[in-house]
Amino acid sequence: MIKIAVDGMGGDYAPQLVVEGAVQAAHLFGDLEIIITGREDAIKRELYRHKVPGGKISIRHASEVVAMSDSPVQAIKKKKDSSLSVAIQLLKQKEVDAVVTAGNTGAAVAASTLNLGLLPGIRRPGIAISIPTLHGISIAIDVGANINPAPEHLLQYAIMADTYARHLLKKKKPTIGLLNIGEEESKGTEALQEAYKLIRDSGLNFVGNIEGRDFFTGKCDCIVCDGFAGNVVLKMTESILEMMITLITKEIQKDFLARIGAFFCKPAFESIRKETNYEDAGGAPLLGVDGVVIISHGISSAKAIRNAIRVARESVVEQVNERIIDGINSYMNGDSSSPSKSIPIHKVNP
Amino acid sequence: MIKIAVDGMGGDYAPQLVVEGAVQAAHLFGDLEIIITGREDAIKRELYRHKVPGGKISIRHASEVVAMSDSPVQAIKKKKDSSLSVAIQLLKQKEVDAVVTAGNTGAAVAASTLNLGLLPGIRRPGIAISIPTLHGISIAIDVGANINPAPEHLLQYAIMADTYARHLLKKKKPTIGLLNIGEEESKGTEALQEAYKLIRDSGLNFVGNIEGRDFFTGKCDCIVCDGFAGNVVLKMTESILEMMITLITKEIQKDFLARIGAFFCKPAFESIRKETNYEDAGGAPLLGVDGVVIISHGISSAKAIRNAIRVARESVVEQVNERIIDGINSYMNGDSSSPSKSIPIHKVNP
Repeated sequence: MIKIAVDGMGGDYAPQLVVEGAVQAAHLFGDLEIIITGREDAIKRELYRHKVPGGKISIRHASEVVAMSDSPVQAIKKKKDSSLSVAIQLLKQKEVDAVVTAGNTGAAVAASTLNLGLLPGIRRPGIAISIPTLHGISIAIDVGANINPAPEHLLQYAIMADTYARHLLKKKKPTIGLLNIGEEESKGTEALQEAYKLIRDSGLNFVGNIEGRDFFTGKCDCIVCDGFAGNVVLKMTESILEMMITLITKEIQKDFLARIGAFFCKPAFESIRKETNYEDAGGAPLLGVDGVVIISHGISSAKAIRNAIRVARESVVEQVNERIIDGINSYMNGDSSSPSKSIPIHKVNP
Repeated sequence: MIKIAVDGMGGDYAPQLVVEGAVQAAHLFGDLEIIITGREDAIKRELYRHKVPGGKISIRHASEVVAMSDSPVQAIKKKKDSSLSVAIQLLKQKEVDAVVTAGNTGAAVAASTLNLGLLPGIRRPGIAISIPTLHGISIAIDVGANINPAPEHLLQYAIMADTYARHLLKKKKPTIGLLNIGEEESKGTEALQEAYKLIRDSGLNFVGNIEGRDFFTGKCDCIVCDGFAGNVVLKMTESILEMMITLITKEIQKDFLARIGAFFCKPAFESIRKETNYEDAGGAPLLGVDGVVIISHGISSAKAIRNAIRVARESVVEQVNERIIDGINSYMNGDSSSPSKSIPIHKVNP
């Protein structure tokens, strides 16, 4: 049995759609046991609406709720009995194998980092997201946990992304690109120039710098980026599809024939909407913390929650964190069989 | 007469499309005199292909060409007789009123900054671009000249954007947003937090932080951003439309009815392509340098060059640089009539 704690009060549509997504996941995966954290009465009320497979879902009461607008520090210091904190505590005490939350991202990162600690050798956690590209799914890391990464952090993001792509996306030798403002090694900030060298010399399948224009072309399987640019790009992506649809609809309304045409194109548009939909991506793993934590979008639907639980389950099954430790050992410290791979680790302030 | 130097060898399709665009502009604007810099024989050959209005276009020979791959330092130090350098020299010596180049952006920024110097009070130049949004044109600054801006640089970008939006986009009281990873004042790097305060207290029409999702919604008229994130976003935007069209085409090909539908939708698609087309944007002004310099896209078509020349002409007519000096004086130093507006300028390394 795989046990997953779901933050029942996190997200714009919590607890309603969170509970619905958890129920869907419980039906879908026979090997899951789900504990929903949060206000017992509210969650119970939602559970009553559904047919829940016997013994698969339980509730752990938590009296407080982290608001989307709470600062991470506030959330952690002042709301010790929040649905988020209780879920993370369950993971810390090994009562569950993973946590899924659609709540306040900053609070989730802070609570996980402080309570679970980092994997051995890891200096900073990073949020990884799946990106639909012209050539399948790529992953980008970091998209918001670390807005001022040191070169070593970026190298570790590359290693974590490589691990994730190998084991969850089943890519054989994932290609790694570094998001920069030009392809040449000399481009970008000093931290990026240094990161370029570290990743190039690491033994990873590094394809060099990539630019904004390569983000959706699938030029590489893993895009390593600073959390600031990654976050801006991620949020922009979410809005740009909506903008395109608004523009298309507006233009089509102007013309009678186009309106007829659009009717026939509808299935094609729907299919694109689906291909580029965050709901199917399945949540963003917070990589580097000592425990499986999946952050789902604040506006998560039941389907998005269900898919985030799926990704949490796969991360446990594939032992992603154990693989990350292996990756760090072999790419950064040189594993016992090939100590020549060893890379000097620059001293930086944590 | 307004005199404009056009870098005849800059851009992927130079000199052919650059000359063609210059000829179009000469026909369109009766008050223009254009000097094309570059290899005389090559430019002459191109000019012979067109009907050129009498006395409107001349050539200034330059023996060298800055390649797209040249580093800015290489370009400036080793190619003193390049078409770019010669154009900038013409501007410096007041033989022309503005320069248009579709060549190497880094070299254009460096050559302009070093040779023309900055406007009084300005600490760093910034590249501004026009963005088509759901509510008309917005401008974003900086998109690549300054990848590590100090708070004061960002304040000055806000002032320059305000000036540009007032006088070239004819917006009455342009709204200013700061690109960040969250709306709260406490979000982002220290430099952004400090910039937030400076812009808020400047007297500009500041709407606060905006996120990636607001980039194309027209939430504000002017988007102030660090050159790194701005550059990534800009390049991503260019590719995302192509990606959408590829996806739509692929999906539509799968289905016979959709293919018929798409036929009727074609005018709508074309209209969107046009609305979001860089060609119409008219090049990106390099604001803050002591002279009007417009940078056009490397893949500029004749139409893009023509529109960049149009923007150069308007910048001269509207006296953008004089207005920027006024703006800096009134928002940063406090103008003589209201010295209380004075804002302390933090000491930073240049």
